[in-house]
Amino acid sequence: MVILGIDPGYAIVGYGVIDTTKKDMVLDYGAITTPKEDSMPVRLQSIEGALNFLLEKFKPDVVAIEELFYFKNQKTVIPVAQARGVIVLTCQKYCGNIYEYTPLQIKQALTGHGRAEKAQVQYMVKAILGLNSIPKPDDAADALAVAICHSQTSSVLNENRM
Amino acid sequence: MVILGIDPGYAIVGYGVIDTTKKDMVLDYGAITTPKEDSMPVRLQSIEGALNFLLEKFKPDVVAIEELFYFKNQKTVIPVAQARGVIVLTCQKYCGNIYEYTPLQIKQALTGHGRAEKAQVQYMVKAILGLNSIPKPDDAADALAVAICHSQTSSVLNENRM
Repeated sequence: MVILGIDPGYAIVGYGVIDTTKKDMVLDYGAITTPKEDSMPVRLQSIEGALNFLLEKFKPDVVAIEELFYFKNQKTVIPVAQARGVIVLTCQKYCGNIYEYTPLQIKQALTGHGRAEKAQVQYMVKAILGLNSIPKPDDAADALAVAICHSQTSSVLNENRM
Repeated sequence: MVILGIDPGYAIVGYGVIDTTKKDMVLDYGAITTPKEDSMPVRLQSIEGALNFLLEKFKPDVVAIEELFYFKNQKTVIPVAQARGVIVLTCQKYCGNIYEYTPLQIKQALTGHGRAEKAQVQYMVKAILGLNSIPKPDDAADALAVAICHSQTSSVLNENRM
């Protein structure tokens, strides 16, 4: 199963692609970035374009995306949610198979406890995927984390289906 | 100039289309609705589809959309912003000519004061457009209000360009 994990944002969208049938699971990871000089409509269109490129290239069976909470960052919640809407729409049009996970669920899946520090989660991403170093930027590591979270929970849970 | 005004939402998207070159300005108004039984990805795709239908039918020169504020309704701000992202993307791909106005700017443009009651704004929509009754639902009236707001301010201001 090929899973595309996404850490949503408007300036940076982290992504990570894993194939759970392979020993070396990681196919790709990185970040879609949009310049702040561009208007919001142009940035949203850039995100759609880059995401369509990734979907066509890796043909994921499923997309796993981090859930947003307004209290986490009230200043950016509206633009981040707008970008997340574009991401969800684009993935829906591609495969219609989207799951969402809370930060707590992701931490729980990767480290065994929901209050884990960011560094512990990143360490587990590196360890589980057999990488030589922690993936950069943080957004890419977060995206790989949500992809791993899906691979570890999808067999038992369907409640995260969007 | 044909203006498409939009009151963003995920359950109801109000829309209003006016042609400022005609005496009877109103071309159409109404609401795109999405059933709550549908998943959020499906609802976002429905909004995109219905909006593309309106864009193709009325071929607006410009889109005017209401700005969101997170403190107005914290419970729904994330899904509403996600839908707004889809709306902005869809309009950007169609004409790339999008303006946004705050509720205060809309009230100011229609009634002359930013603290006007909703009923006063709706009355002015009816009066300015020469309608026999206040447009229903409220979301459609709000969408016509933002379209009128753009028609009255676009000649002097460019700061509302997205």
